[in-house]
Amino acid sequence: MSTIKNKLRRLLIDKGLVITMGDRPEVLHHHSVGIEGDKIVFIKPSSEVNSEGWDEVYDARDMAVMPGFINCHTHAAMSLMRGFADDKPLKEWLEDYIWPSEAAFMNRENVALGTRLALLEMISAGTVMFADMYFFEDEVAKACHEAGMRVLLGEGLLDFKTPHFQRPEDGIAFTLDLASEYAHDPLVKVAFAPHAAYTVSPTLLKKIAELSGQHNLPVHIHLAETRQEVEDCYRAFGSHPVDHLFNVGLLNHRLITAHMVHVPAEYHARLREAGVRIAHNPSANLKLASGFAPVHEYLQEKIILGLGTDGPASNNNLALPIEWRHSSLITKMLTGQPETINAFDALYMATTGGAKVLGVDHITGSLQPGKAADIILIPLNKPHLLPVYNIYATLAYSMHPTDVDTVIINGKTVMRHRRILTLDTEKIITQVKKVEEKIAHYFHLNNRRNGKK
Amino acid sequence: MSTIKNKLRRLLIDKGLVITMGDRPEVLHHHSVGIEGDKIVFIKPSSEVNSEGWDEVYDARDMAVMPGFINCHTHAAMSLMRGFADDKPLKEWLEDYIWPSEAAFMNRENVALGTRLALLEMISAGTVMFADMYFFEDEVAKACHEAGMRVLLGEGLLDFKTPHFQRPEDGIAFTLDLASEYAHDPLVKVAFAPHAAYTVSPTLLKKIAELSGQHNLPVHIHLAETRQEVEDCYRAFGSHPVDHLFNVGLLNHRLITAHMVHVPAEYHARLREAGVRIAHNPSANLKLASGFAPVHEYLQEKIILGLGTDGPASNNNLALPIEWRHSSLITKMLTGQPETINAFDALYMATTGGAKVLGVDHITGSLQPGKAADIILIPLNKPHLLPVYNIYATLAYSMHPTDVDTVIINGKTVMRHRRILTLDTEKIITQVKKVEEKIAHYFHLNNRRNGKK
Repeated sequence: MSTIKNKLRRLLIDKGLVITMGDRPEVLHHHSVGIEGDKIVFIKPSSEVNSEGWDEVYDARDMAVMPGFINCHTHAAMSLMRGFADDKPLKEWLEDYIWPSEAAFMNRENVALGTRLALLEMISAGTVMFADMYFFEDEVAKACHEAGMRVLLGEGLLDFKTPHFQRPEDGIAFTLDLASEYAHDPLVKVAFAPHAAYTVSPTLLKKIAELSGQHNLPVHIHLAETRQEVEDCYRAFGSHPVDHLFNVGLLNHRLITAHMVHVPAEYHARLREAGVRIAHNPSANLKLASGFAPVHEYLQEKIILGLGTDGPASNNNLALPIEWRHSSLITKMLTGQPETINAFDALYMATTGGAKVLGVDHITGSLQPGKAADIILIPLNKPHLLPVYNIYATLAYSMHPTDVDTVIINGKTVMRHRRILTLDTEKIITQVKKVEEKIAHYFHLNNRRNGKK
Repeated sequence: MSTIKNKLRRLLIDKGLVITMGDRPEVLHHHSVGIEGDKIVFIKPSSEVNSEGWDEVYDARDMAVMPGFINCHTHAAMSLMRGFADDKPLKEWLEDYIWPSEAAFMNRENVALGTRLALLEMISAGTVMFADMYFFEDEVAKACHEAGMRVLLGEGLLDFKTPHFQRPEDGIAFTLDLASEYAHDPLVKVAFAPHAAYTVSPTLLKKIAELSGQHNLPVHIHLAETRQEVEDCYRAFGSHPVDHLFNVGLLNHRLITAHMVHVPAEYHARLREAGVRIAHNPSANLKLASGFAPVHEYLQEKIILGLGTDGPASNNNLALPIEWRHSSLITKMLTGQPETINAFDALYMATTGGAKVLGVDHITGSLQPGKAADIILIPLNKPHLLPVYNIYATLAYSMHPTDVDTVIINGKTVMRHRRILTLDTEKIITQVKKVEEKIAHYFHLNNRRNGKK
């Protein structure tokens, strides 16, 4: 047994302003975080730490050191469709642009590429884990391994043909295969991902509910996104989408629901009791004019709540700071209460809350000895971040996604001084521009890169 | 007469994607912008331009070249109070924090410092002009000259004592002095800045209306920001704030109104007919839970409309991209119309619209030969900006404030490759941290930089 092979990398993040988050949050001045291999081994006052003898030491003076952000709902590969059909109603957006482009372009190769483009963006904005729902999710797993990114992935399951599978049964079998392949993987976790109650039959949803219990796998689904969806659900099944999921056996602690915009108050206690988790996607809900989720009520009810960006074609970003800003500021306005979704709440949703939604809060979402080293460094000596009176306010209301300097995931440095170390940025950009050209040509966007008022 | 002294700097911005904005907007591929002194002299296909013989050539391949952003309402020096009293109701925020801190700290020296801090942030986010309302505005003029920033400044006028003046009459005399001092200045313009209808008596407002006409000076005022303000106006004067301004003779084309959140539809045609201009401040209105301005109605009515950040203590940013994103996305949600405030509208408000609000659209706000060279360069080869199918969508929905690489104001380069050339960033940061310490001590924020949930 080689001692070299087994030697864990020892990294010290030294003299930082450590923001632990978690359920006993602390802000610790001049503290250091010791990392061995993939784990945090201590958080101590820097005066008590010897900075000699480490493999690497990151000087974190005048920097916030905090858990990385968790994106609870996206379709990463849709980055390739970013910005090609904006300012359109949902139906036209989906039927005239998104679905045709998926049919024509979202093959295995482009999913691999689009996911990598999204990974570049997510890492550069401080994201350390995301939940994905798309097609060819084995490619997403590979891309995340390459990037060093944590993921909960789910192959999109629909009643009809997808770019990957002819029949939903094949997608289910594929999900189970992926789950067993990655059962002991440090970065990749697998979920069932039925698209929605209006695209997956009750029979199939029941089957998924059953398998989810048997294999103890999370279920990730779009729910109560639009008023139309709720009306259609009443028409088709005589019930609200939440009741519908109860009826098919999915309303339990394994369920991750994306959106939850149109959920009347009488359902909230039931959601909490069932342990249902919510991924709140403010940008996409606003941009597609779907409405705005009652996040303050969800928080009051202590429902497990995190933030998602949704796909980059309906946002058009993959940056958590943009999401929590919308969430906090719009909730203040809608409720008339400036105290609501305060700076801490906003950051909690993006870190600890997100980890709970994805069922990984025992691993990540806060800084604590024994947890994985999923850490970001944010230099504070910038004009738009100064002065600092309350670090939560500084980060929640003043930081830009690009303020993240360093990203460590599972103990591995994936971005340092804003340079991504695990993916080839130049190569990905070159390939993306080729696909851009093809998609633009296909949709007769002849004046490519042209403005269209 | 020395030829050297009179020789104008000749700068070529070469091979860019030129986005002219203005009322006949064009997107021009592989175009070059020629600048002589402070003016744009041509915009031509790069193939027709000789890139030899210029004082400087900026290679703008793969970059958007567009007019810089205009911030129609702020209180720049309040950057020193950024983040020290968030998540509080307006009354508590103002009475327990903002006013006491202004009384204790906002002297001439700190206004000079806070304005410089704000200038660093504004330039780095692509802002080329702002409208300021605060105290010691002669210091703001000096700071803007040092920074090379365009400004419409107005000394805050209130019935009561300000940090600068005992009596409003002194503030009025000072405004007139400033206006005559800067009458022919290329960067600095002067406005009357009565704070609001609830802090300035009708007698004083009438006096200001009269002087504004005599001297042809704009009037910059907060109006219809909160429901409370409207109710108080009815109680005190029996009229809505818009009617009140009409009654005192201010409702005309020289009037710049900040906020305009609570303005019923029956006033809109009158506002357009009077030529009143509106500075829409989405972040501050959201964060203080004041409400949301009916911007889509203002746009439909063709009222002159621009964006403002409001002061950095109630935002907590000075970045136009954040404002237009809130404005566009929230309006889509509130109206249920995803087509509303489209990508072009959003950028228009931040450029040409803003120039019209500040009465400088003959000088700036669009790229056109003869206009001032107020230009920003935005590199597009970044993961979060790709692909580019429609450049307006890319800029409106995907750009971060930090994507701006170069800022040229009045022909002078004030930021190049993100380094600000006109102000001493390090020195300003050092001074700001000293003031931060004093303010934190005064307000017993003993756990300075500590988190407060």
